[in-house]
Parts: sequence; structure tokens; C-alpha cells
Amino acid sequence: MTSLETRDLLGLEGACPDTIREILARARSLRTACRGDELAGRVVANLFFEDSTRTRCSFEVAATRLGAHVLNLGSRGSSASKGESLVDTARNIEAMGVDALVVRTAASGGAALVADACTTPVINAGDGRHEHPTQALLDAFVLEERLGGLQGRRVAIVGDILNSRVARSNVHGLIALGAHVTLVGPPALLDGSFRGLVPEAVADQLAIAHDIDSVLEEADAVMMLRIQRERASSDLIATDYRRLYGMTAERAARLSGDQVLLHPGPVNRGVEMDGVVLDSNPHVVVLEQVAAGTWVRAAVLLRAIGV
Amino acid sequence: MTSLETRDLLGLEGACPDTIREILARARSLRTACRGDELAGRVVANLFFEDSTRTRCSFEVAATRLGAHVLNLGSRGSSASKGESLVDTARNIEAMGVDALVVRTAASGGAALVADACTTPVINAGDGRHEHPTQALLDAFVLEERLGGLQGRRVAIVGDILNSRVARSNVHGLIALGAHVTLVGPPALLDGSFRGLVPEAVADQLAIAHDIDSVLEEADAVMMLRIQRERASSDLIATDYRRLYGMTAERAARLSGDQVLLHPGPVNRGVEMDGVVLDSNPHVVVLEQVAAGTWVRAAVLLRAIGV
Amino acid sequence: MTSLETRDLLGLEGACPDTIREILARARSLRTACRGDELAGRVVANLFFEDSTRTRCSFEVAATRLGAHVLNLGSRGSSASKGESLVDTARNIEAMGVDALVVRTAASGGAALVADACTTPVINAGDGRHEHPTQALLDAFVLEERLGGLQGRRVAIVGDILNSRVARSNVHGLIALGAHVTLVGPPALLDGSFRGLVPEAVADQLAIAHDIDSVLEEADAVMMLRIQRERASSDLIATDYRRLYGMTAERAARLSGDQVLLHPGPVNRGVEMDGVVLDSNPHVVVLEQVAAGTWVRAAVLLRAIGV
Repeated sequence: MTSLETRDLLGLEGACPDTIREILARARSLRTACRGDELAGRVVANLFFEDSTRTRCSFEVAATRLGAHVLNLGSRGSSASKGESLVDTARNIEAMGVDALVVRTAASGGAALVADACTTPVINAGDGRHEHPTQALLDAFVLEERLGGLQGRRVAIVGDILNSRVARSNVHGLIALGAHVTLVGPPALLDGSFRGLVPEAVADQLAIAHDIDSVLEEADAVMMLRIQRERASSDLIATDYRRLYGMTAERAARLSGDQVLLHPGPVNRGVEMDGVVLDSNPHVVVLEQVAAGTWVRAAVLLRAIGV
Repeated sequence: MTSLETRDLLGLEGACPDTIREILARARSLRTACRGDELAGRVVANLFFEDSTRTRCSFEVAATRLGAHVLNLGSRGSSASKGESLVDTARNIEAMGVDALVVRTAASGGAALVADACTTPVINAGDGRHEHPTQALLDAFVLEERLGGLQGRRVAIVGDILNSRVARSNVHGLIALGAHVTLVGPPALLDGSFRGLVPEAVADQLAIAHDIDSVLEEADAVMMLRIQRERASSDLIATDYRRLYGMTAERAARLSGDQVLLHPGPVNRGVEMDGVVLDSNPHVVVLEQVAAGTWVRAAVLLRAIGV
Repeated sequence: MTSLETRDLLGLEGACPDTIREILARARSLRTACRGDELAGRVVANLFFEDSTRTRCSFEVAATRLGAHVLNLGSRGSSASKGESLVDTARNIEAMGVDALVVRTAASGGAALVADACTTPVINAGDGRHEHPTQALLDAFVLEERLGGLQGRRVAIVGDILNSRVARSNVHGLIALGAHVTLVGPPALLDGSFRGLVPEAVADQLAIAHDIDSVLEEADAVMMLRIQRERASSDLIATDYRRLYGMTAERAARLSGDQVLLHPGPVNRGVEMDGVVLDSNPHVVVLEQVAAGTWVRAAVLLRAIGV
């Protein structure tokens, strides 16, 4: 119950289900009735110490749709190359007078470090292997819309669980919203210790499996993770990853009815998902996820800034 | 008649002269009477997968003058470095909710690929060796202003024709507006096959020459092309390029009357044009071209977005 | 009396004290009563040919707070990589139609070169070893606020004087405002020739010392310079720089009363200042300097654009 009590959004671990539902409701409402001046005159700083196109642009479009100005700081051409620390940079940007700090960093726990050092609200846009809460919120947005709610629904999250902040945030968010989550991945990237991700009280909502084919038909939604080459322990990724864990055209053909296939993007075509699946399988909702991101992040920005 | 029928602007090949004239007329009108809120609340995405300062900034200033917000994506620090394709990136940016996609890419035909995949209007800001239509439109803007019209005027385009998207777009635009174009360049960069650039019906408006000095006095306008070191087959560029095809101080001194000297910039001083010519020859209109670019691109953005 | 007579701000050498006081007064007034539309519809171009996070962002936040749009050009992904000169780039950006050029360059005198070539007002955001006038103005802003005025106050500037544009601008600004300045540094980075920085008439306001400990107690303010690894002649920086010239925890403990400790940032922790000093010494005003930068730069932008 800690991380959502302030206006910071550092992660979904311990998040109160009502707070999550409030953000999702506001995102739905913004999608149909955004005025455009909600954040007029405000400045949102995008501190992206790790490269990202989508997340950075998604926050920028969200802020822009609300009338805010966006200050973009990348990892290159910045004081980072002068050896300045994440926290020093954030404190300096804060001192210039900005209204929110959106932080992406390769350091797990980096967003919390910034939040500890700053009074300006901090939104975690992905910190190492830790959390990526706005990704999980947009996933929940799409899943609620597609499945009519998450209570009792079964979601399989497939891939490199060990290195995935998307998986961690989704476990916390989905379970808070009443879903049952099955983590699926090679034993080297997913061992029994992952049961410890959630408190005992909800332990029955989290399962672990190593065979994608055993969970494919029973899942209401299947979320394929990106192989994070920049974070993955590459020797642990078997060369036959696609055959064992990829959403091949054959596997995708077994999906039916309202089953939903998600991916946080960008997709490594032919690794975790075949290109033909991404381009034409009717269960794929990747672009719906992207579209939801704009409004979920807009809702998160409004909440952070207290508007 | 194809490429201008949609609100996309992919190239000037086959463009209807009336459409070109409409864009130029609107640019003239914006230059004197831009309100500043024509695109208020709109988002223009600058997808620059190939480095560019001028064109990117020109589109940004144009959009800004109309009140739009500009989302800049460069080739570095982007998902391109994660191996995502041009089309995947564009479709994702589109899904976030933007009003126009301005695309610069090293891939000839890349802008059309994006347009095929997206419903958001696409403006080609230069795609490989194919086209650079807004450059040709701004050149036409300056030439019409300087020469009082293009019907029957003679324009020489000099340099590395083989690798030049500026030359291709200008051939199509200038011929549509009634001008006669002479392409001038070394045989290795310009052979007889270039006559095929235009349809038979207008074949008499296109000539090919290999000697700049033979066309210098008779041309109403001389357009020097940039040696695109990044695209040129360097062994084909003779070391005496300047002597044979450059606008040296000596050649520039032979210009007279209303003759106009253009260059799309940035100029390689001492290669295709001597520095002293750029800085002080009265026939040079390079900065007028840049200034025209703002309003031509503003007109193209308004047309694309349908305002 | 030259550099501030136009609306350019190239340096503080020869600046009229009244002009400096006017800028500082306007900055104070903006801090409490900025409307937000002072520069609505204007475009400020940030031409940063040398990497910088803080100064670029500070100008961007300042312009944004006044309602202007900011056009950011960095050193990478720009025509600079096509060999275009500083001046050619600036003239082209000017031709697009912008209202002010903020220039950062590694070339000493580079801002003046741009100002000579352009009619758009130019603000020097740091040019090589020459000047960094907005840094000195924000330092004066903080010092006046902390010390209640600069007339007769004693300021020690400590470090690599030879390579520091911050030191040069501060010498000119502080002396114009009536302060006494002592430059402190190793003999290799500070010899007697530095007395020539200021005219004879004010020679008594400038002193030179080589021992930080001899000036520490008597100074009203101590300004630590950043070791500019990118500009410093590294063999001249003794490995015991910290011991001889650094603001160690021991030295900082000797500060008392209203003494002020400044640093232009980013701090090399453990080189020119110990991390513990930066983080918790009560005399440190580094974040006040950053905060002042927003309003000082806003005042400079308004003056440049003539609003």
C-alpha cells in the first residue's frame, strides 16, 4: 500500500486496487473527453537515461494532449556523459521548476532513488528489472475493455520473467484487480522463488509453468514478453527460444473466441512472436495497447500533478 | 496523378499542376497572414530515421508557427537501435494519436511503405534517392517569385543526378509547372536513361548535358546539387569535381541579369560551390529557399491534416 | 560598454552595471509574477554545438515559462556531422524565422561570430574558454539575494581559471557590480597575466592567490569551478587537486555565518567538492543557482527579443 500513497507512481507492488481502478477510469474518460488545457502552463520532464522510443513518445503525446510542455532529456548529449548521477540530474531539473519527473533508467530501484531526493512527483517509466507500472496499467486498460473485467480472469505471461519489469508490474496490477496469473518461461529464467513476488494472502492467484502449450487454451489472455537483449543473460536464452516459448503462427492458430494476445513492443519478429502473427492474427491487441498508453499516461500525469 | 490524390505527399511524380499551384498559393498566403492557431492542439510527428538538421527544423518551425506540437524521433536513442522497422515504428506512433507523420529515411520508397501501413497522412521529407517533394516545392516557390512564373523557363540542375532525390522531385515539379529542365552531370552519374524520368508527352521539356559551361548563360536558374557523400558512389566523383561541375567564383561571375543560383544546402564549400559565391554572389538565393521552406511546409501540413 | 549595447548577450566584459541590474531586477520580478504568455507565438532556437544538459534545459524551461516554443539543435544528428559550419547553420535557422538564437559552442568567440552573421538576437550560452554570461548573471542573482548586495563584497573564484568561461564572465560581472574578486588556482592555471582581464581603473578589485586556505575565511562567497575535463590540460591538473584546491569536508567546516558556497555544476564529487559538502553543507547554494537560472534566462530572453 506504499507506492501509490504519494502522488509518485513508482510501481504497482502493494498498490491499492481502488487507486488502480481510479486511474483506469480517468483514462477512459480522457479518451473521450480530453479538453486539451488540463495541464496548460505545466512542464513535464522526460528523464530518459535509457533509450526508449515508445514510452518517451507516449508520455510526450499524453502530456501534449493535456496542454503541457515536455522537456526531453536523453542519455546522450547530457551531463550523464559528464559523470553526473541520476539523482543529481533529477534534483537539478527539479530546481529549474518542473511539475513532474518521468524517469526511465537501467538501474533497478532508480525511480525510487529520484523520488526520495525530490519533492516533485516522480513517475517510473521503467527502472531496470524492477517495475514499469504505466505499462501494466495500459495492459489492464486493454484487458478490462476486451474481457469486460479482470476478476477471475486467467492471464499467462510468457518469456524472460527474470529480466522483465513488465512482468513484475503486471503480476502486481493484475492480481490486485482479481486476475489469476501464470508465469511461463524456461526454468533458468523462472524458478520457484518467483512465487515470493506476491504476499501469501494472494498466493493462489499466482502460478508458475514451463510449458506454454499447456496454458495456451485455458488463458483468457496471453502476454508475450520482449526478449530484452540489453538485459538478458544471453547464454540462458536457448537458441530454440522461438520453438519452445515463441508465439509462432502454429500456436497463434490455436487461439479462439475472445482470447487476447498482448506484447509490450517493440516485437522481435520471429523470436518471441512471428511477424505474421503480429501483422494479421485477430487476437493481437498490440496497437490497442499503444493507443491505451496515451490515455493511461495522461491520467497518471494528472494524478501526479494533482489536477 | 496518383501521389497527390490522397492527403499524403510522397512525391511530385505524376502530381497535378493545379495541386502544386494550390500549395504554393497557400504558402504565399501563410507567409503574410499566418494566424498561429491553425493547428492548435494537433501533434505532428517528425520521424527522422536519417540525420537532418534543416529539414527537421524547417518542419518543426512550420508546425510551430501553426500552433501544432512537434514530436521528434531521431535515428539515435530510438527503437531503431532495438531493430524495429520503419513501418512498425510509424504504426506505433500513429496509434498514440498523432495528426501527421513526416518521414525522412535513407530507404528509397520508405515514405510510401509507411503510407501504405498507416491511415494518418504521411509527408515525405526525403526518402533515399527517390524524392524530396517539399524541397522541390520550396524551390518552385522561390523560382516563381524570382522569375515571375515557371512556364517556359529554363532550369539547369547540376551535379550528382544519380543519387539526388532533390533532382528527381524538381524534375517532376518544374516540368509540371511548364519549365524546361536540363540535367547536368558527369556521365557516370547521368546517362541517357534519365530521359525516362518523365513521360513521353513532356519529353521535350527534359534535356541532358555533361558540360556546365554550355548551359550556364542560357539558364534562367541554375540549381547546384549537394554532393551527398553519404549516398554517393565516391569513386565516381572525380577529384576534379569542382573544376568540372562546381560553381566556382569564375563561373558565378558569368551570371547576369535575373539569373538565379540555388542550392538545397548545406553547401560543401569549395566542392559544388565556392564559399565566396555562397557568401556574396548576388544571384544566390539559398537563404530565400530556406525561408520559403517554412511556409511551403506549413501549407503542406495544413493540406495533409485537412485544415 | 560594447557587448550589451545591442540586444545580443555575448559576454559581460565591458557591460554597463545598470544593464546588469536591469536584467537581475526583471528576473526577480518574473520569479514572482510571470504571466506565461510574454513570448507566446515566438520561437527560441537552442543551438547547442557542445553537449550540455543543464544550460540547454534551463533556457528551455525559461522560454517555456514565457510561452515560447523551443527548437532544439544538438551537436549530434545535425548538419554539423555533414561539415556545416556554426555560422552557416545559424544563418539557416535564422532564415526559417526564429526570434532568438541561444548558442553554445566549444569555440571561444563562436557566439560573436554568429552574432556578426545574423540579425536575430544571439545569446551566448557558453563559448569555449571565453564567456558564459548567463551563468555569471545567475550567480550574481543568488549572491545579491544572499549577501544583500555585491558592493564591497569579497568573492573568491577557485579552480582551473585558465580554462573557465564561468570565471571570466564572473570577473566582469562581479567587478561591474562593485565586488572584489580573488582568483585562486594552481600557478600553471593562473599566472600574473590574469590581472589583465580587467581595465586599470578597476585593477584594485581583482586579486590573484594560489592558496585557497588563505582566502577561505575572509571571503563572503567562494565559487568552486568545475574541472572541465573536456577543456583542461590534464597534465596541469595535479593528482592532488582535491587536497590543494578542493572544497573538502574539512575546509567546508571552516565556513561560517552568511558565507556562501557556489558551484556552476555539475559537480565532480570528490574532485573540486566533496559529495558530503554538496549534499549537506548549509552554505551550499547550488540548487538556488539552478533555480535562479530559469528566471535570469527568462529575463535575458525578454530583453533579447525586445518584449
